[in-house]
Amino acid sequence: MTVRPAKTYRAKTMLTAMTSGAALLALAPAAHAEEGMWTFDAFPVEQMKKEYGWAPDQAWLDRSRGAAIRLTNGCSASFVSPDGLILTNHHCIVSCLQDLSTQDSDLVAGGFNAGMRSNEKTCPGQQAELVTAITDYTADIKGAIGDKQGAELVTARDARISEIEASQCPDTEKTRCQVVKFFGGGQYKLYKYRKYSDVRIAWAPEFNAAFFGGDPDNFNFPRYALDAAFLRAYDGDKPASTPQHLKWNVRAPQEGEVAFVVGNPGSTQRGMTSEQRAYQREVALPRRLLQLAEYRGRLIEAMRGSEERTREGGSRLFGVENAFKALNGRMQALNNAEFAAQLDAAEAALKERSSGQIEGDPWADIAKAVDAYRNFDEAYTQIDSSGLSQLYGYARTLVRAAIEREKPNTERLAEYADARLPLVEKRLLDAAPTYPWLEELSLRFWLSKTRELLTTDNPDVQALLGKESPEDMAARLVKGAQLADPAVRKQLWEGGLEAIRASNDPLIKLALSQDARTRELNKRYEQEYEAPVTAAQAKLTDARFAAYGDSIYPDATFTLRISYGSVKGWEENGRQVPIATQMGGTYDRATGSDPYKIAEAFKANADGLDKAATYNFVSTNDIIGGNSGSPVLDRQGKVIGTAFDGNIHSLGGNYGYDGNLNRTVSVSTEAIQQGLETLYPAPELVKELGGE
Amino acid sequence: MTVRPAKTYRAKTMLTAMTSGAALLALAPAAHAEEGMWTFDAFPVEQMKKEYGWAPDQAWLDRSRGAAIRLTNGCSASFVSPDGLILTNHHCIVSCLQDLSTQDSDLVAGGFNAGMRSNEKTCPGQQAELVTAITDYTADIKGAIGDKQGAELVTARDARISEIEASQCPDTEKTRCQVVKFFGGGQYKLYKYRKYSDVRIAWAPEFNAAFFGGDPDNFNFPRYALDAAFLRAYDGDKPASTPQHLKWNVRAPQEGEVAFVVGNPGSTQRGMTSEQRAYQREVALPRRLLQLAEYRGRLIEAMRGSEERTREGGSRLFGVENAFKALNGRMQALNNAEFAAQLDAAEAALKERSSGQIEGDPWADIAKAVDAYRNFDEAYTQIDSSGLSQLYGYARTLVRAAIEREKPNTERLAEYADARLPLVEKRLLDAAPTYPWLEELSLRFWLSKTRELLTTDNPDVQALLGKESPEDMAARLVKGAQLADPAVRKQLWEGGLEAIRASNDPLIKLALSQDARTRELNKRYEQEYEAPVTAAQAKLTDARFAAYGDSIYPDATFTLRISYGSVKGWEENGRQVPIATQMGGTYDRATGSDPYKIAEAFKANADGLDKAATYNFVSTNDIIGGNSGSPVLDRQGKVIGTAFDGNIHSLGGNYGYDGNLNRTVSVSTEAIQQGLETLYPAPELVKELGGE
Repeated sequence: MTVRPAKTYRAKTMLTAMTSGAALLALAPAAHAEEGMWTFDAFPVEQMKKEYGWAPDQAWLDRSRGAAIRLTNGCSASFVSPDGLILTNHHCIVSCLQDLSTQDSDLVAGGFNAGMRSNEKTCPGQQAELVTAITDYTADIKGAIGDKQGAELVTARDARISEIEASQCPDTEKTRCQVVKFFGGGQYKLYKYRKYSDVRIAWAPEFNAAFFGGDPDNFNFPRYALDAAFLRAYDGDKPASTPQHLKWNVRAPQEGEVAFVVGNPGSTQRGMTSEQRAYQREVALPRRLLQLAEYRGRLIEAMRGSEERTREGGSRLFGVENAFKALNGRMQALNNAEFAAQLDAAEAALKERSSGQIEGDPWADIAKAVDAYRNFDEAYTQIDSSGLSQLYGYARTLVRAAIEREKPNTERLAEYADARLPLVEKRLLDAAPTYPWLEELSLRFWLSKTRELLTTDNPDVQALLGKESPEDMAARLVKGAQLADPAVRKQLWEGGLEAIRASNDPLIKLALSQDARTRELNKRYEQEYEAPVTAAQAKLTDARFAAYGDSIYPDATFTLRISYGSVKGWEENGRQVPIATQMGGTYDRATGSDPYKIAEAFKANADGLDKAATYNFVSTNDIIGGNSGSPVLDRQGKVIGTAFDGNIHSLGGNYGYDGNLNRTVSVSTEAIQQGLETLYPAPELVKELGGE
Repeated sequence: MTVRPAKTYRAKTMLTAMTSGAALLALAPAAHAEEGMWTFDAFPVEQMKKEYGWAPDQAWLDRSRGAAIRLTNGCSASFVSPDGLILTNHHCIVSCLQDLSTQDSDLVAGGFNAGMRSNEKTCPGQQAELVTAITDYTADIKGAIGDKQGAELVTARDARISEIEASQCPDTEKTRCQVVKFFGGGQYKLYKYRKYSDVRIAWAPEFNAAFFGGDPDNFNFPRYALDAAFLRAYDGDKPASTPQHLKWNVRAPQEGEVAFVVGNPGSTQRGMTSEQRAYQREVALPRRLLQLAEYRGRLIEAMRGSEERTREGGSRLFGVENAFKALNGRMQALNNAEFAAQLDAAEAALKERSSGQIEGDPWADIAKAVDAYRNFDEAYTQIDSSGLSQLYGYARTLVRAAIEREKPNTERLAEYADARLPLVEKRLLDAAPTYPWLEELSLRFWLSKTRELLTTDNPDVQALLGKESPEDMAARLVKGAQLADPAVRKQLWEGGLEAIRASNDPLIKLALSQDARTRELNKRYEQEYEAPVTAAQAKLTDARFAAYGDSIYPDATFTLRISYGSVKGWEENGRQVPIATQMGGTYDRATGSDPYKIAEAFKANADGLDKAATYNFVSTNDIIGGNSGSPVLDRQGKVIGTAFDGNIHSLGGNYGYDGNLNRTVSVSTEAIQQGLETLYPAPELVKELGGE
């Protein structure tokens, strides 16, 4: 399993093998006015005009699209100056702060304020991406698939995708091409990005300011969090030139005003059929949550009483707690009878409307695939995993890439195609610290859970552990590991399969010994689940378009979307929740103890701070993990905040949107400006932003 | 929450508040031949004769009943000699071994072998109980209830029960009376017990022999565990005279032979309605499991690398892991569509058969009660809890008892009625070690989960924590705690409310400050859930008897039951699982690492041990947690083993029994005899048992 540093949970390993591979279809038509994570080429202008009496024109849309950034660690962001300045959330870059920290300089706790551009520091592994073109390739790829089935379907499709991606982005230094599957296989589009591989940290508040309220307040409201930070994109060691950027508007949001969120929602599963949801509710979510809960407990206790470990394990703990809460919210949503009935009703409506118009029975095909998957999902999830170990993750990548790179581009596993290799390589080779205690804890946990779940007598377990205990094996693996050194990784990357086979690194050896079985399980997954589901969902997509026309939007795919809504509170237990909090509220909520310890800068500036400044605010926008860091735009297209959270009701948003309750939570530009002017003064940035 | 030391999970706090208070009805009629946890006064002689061509007569039943023991820590056992010798499981007395261990003498790791009676050591808090009479009080108690409803129903019923228990067992030194609710309120019976408050440990194997395979093998088969131990009941400092005891039969079980398990299954929920099961599946089980998982993770990590903590936390960890696996099995059973459909079908059948014959709609009444409970269950579960802290458990008992004892017997909370006080007092005042690190860990966990689940802004959370963090508060509570000293507890117990109010013990103060709110939640539970469910289930019981006659058995209530079945394997993934393992298999399974480290005695006696001796075996008996330690009897009523586990399929047994898959796992007398003769020689015991 892997925990993303930011509020997103897209990776297969974060939820279960089913999430990433699963083809997804959006429910339709939108049941609530503000529902929808719209692609920019299909913004529902007429619908919004009907509801709001106004909608943005093409120029407005183009402007905001041209400044919207995707961060490859799973977040969103935006250009807010002509010199590559990027606004995002603090929690999106906290792992960068941690990577750049040392025992003497804790940038997580103390924050970071470059002061001048020459002091800005590169974030390891980080890449920023700007969409430059979107092209439809549905017919092309469906043509390549033809009437193939099973694993052959997947192979043919992926081969064609690799070809397209490689041919359309020959300049891998500055561009990236990615073919994205929409509607679970109903549409394929090529996204072309201008990429920025050198992204530096410019400004970040103290942890106690950014993450005030910690896990207890996460996904709750009222909130008092300065969850914002600034990065800068560089181009050839100079700040990138970004004439298309958003205007900075320092003002309080007004109740009822229209608000847009532009960003990259990671993944939704609104088009899952009832059988897929049943699998999530009954198997995938509980199993995943139980592992996260125990891992969290181990981590908390391992960090206790050690300042060093508390720093080193901090962002991992955040990731785990955040994922736990988000997935628990999903499970609770699926277990809510009323919510489940709504989803079932939408499915029934589509069945009825498309009755007699669909060839075969895609619902039954999906049910059959889910049943098949239930027979090997546990083994697949446990064996095809790097167990939250960064070093074993490196090892698996090195081994897999070495084997795949010997093959022609179109015959490789999708993630090792030429167009994808640059980011794989960057993530692998960028220097980032690893912590032996955390590595060992993670491997120990993964090995012991694998034995527990699959049982001692299982052949996979016996092949994995031999006669070793999970504890001894984890200790041995970490003790002998050499992959923490980027030079070693580089040598193995460049040395290819020969170097890999000659390596005596115990994690490389483990990854090599597990490779065949992992591929076998992966192939089985493609054959028995992914391929039939892709085929079935392509049919369902056609049925949806036939039934509902253009009023439908695709499930989230970590690609650029726009959501419209308004600044609005909601009713909780008969009480109206106000739209916003004020910065002064921090002082009342502080207790002196974590996570309600007041930040030093708040303490020092109790007089100078504008306590009435709007801090965090809510709006009805339909967002999800991956949207973190998205700019919130007003009617003029100017930034009035950055989205960093959803309220507790938003957690069911993975499956459906409820406009009465779901809310996006953002940090206002008023608060960020207070941060830049008073709390952590950055006059250069204030000037650069040139707020209104 | 509380974790029982043994394989039982009856207490309210172990599962959720609903488990204990919930009235339960057994499904009927038994869907599978061997299904049924029969009371001794309603053994289905005719049914068994039909299936087996033979059934025990009354003398047989009386003989085995007269030797069957209940251990008050949640296990079963039996007298196996005329001098009070008791056979039970090792895991039922491991906490006794731990309590008696010191840094210099680890009785858990090394085992215990008294050698002579004068060396036998008293187990703190342990009490053995033998049923001497069962009397029906249904009419009496239903009369006292009359047409009362809500909390009044509960109060009237409990008052009458307190009267009966006090009046029927005036000799509280040697007898205990307990009115037991069957069929969730359809029947009430008075159980009179001869009690033995001085129970000593005589013989126990090494941990690595008793718990070989540990958590990974728990609830799995094949097993290789010497999970057996001997206690002795004392009467006035002399071995108790127990002329009624079971005969010891040292032989291998034969495939297909009839087998009886006589013991005290803790709790089943086979009569839950679909709405109650939905609550378990959707809310209670996931919530409970997620807490257990994180607590387990914290505990594992806190014990790592410290031999002392590993010893001190050992039985707690076993309890947590055992509960986790058992409850996870339950959740998976409820999430199994086929299993759920069977349960629903049984409910539908009863509805149909009793149509027009039931006054009102008890199913709807229960559904309404479940809905009501969903509104406050989370607060109730978190606030009415001692958070796995033994010291806070003492504090809550002291505070509650002091308040209650000022009232007349019939006006008290049920658990503090006169007849119940002796065991409360014994458990409170017996010296047993507590471990500050474990106390602090447990309190920290409970406080932080309470804040997480109820949220920071919740009034209960604010009353509990004030401005303290869970971590600081837990540290303060444990630092100032005086209740680890039995003398302090005795003084507070005897000093009554005045002493309690004068105490400056922080845990006593906390318990006092929480008392009113806890009572309020408890009252609400009685009013909105327990009372309407009790009334509804009384109606359902009548309907069941009307529909199915005497072929039904009540849900388990930790009272004496008998199950019949046969020694039989099962089919797993198309492969036939053999009925038994042999002792020599231990050597093949051993890896050298925990929990597959071979016990010293196995190593030392590799030559002398009879490797072909039957070790563990399976039978079709219908048992559940609480049955641990039960004797397994053959047709002659002689002991051929002691039940210690169920296979993985038995975990759904809480809701229903599947004779094709559910299996009881027992240690054979052959293996125990090898233990007594070869591994841990105890010639006196061998002689006393006088095996055949």
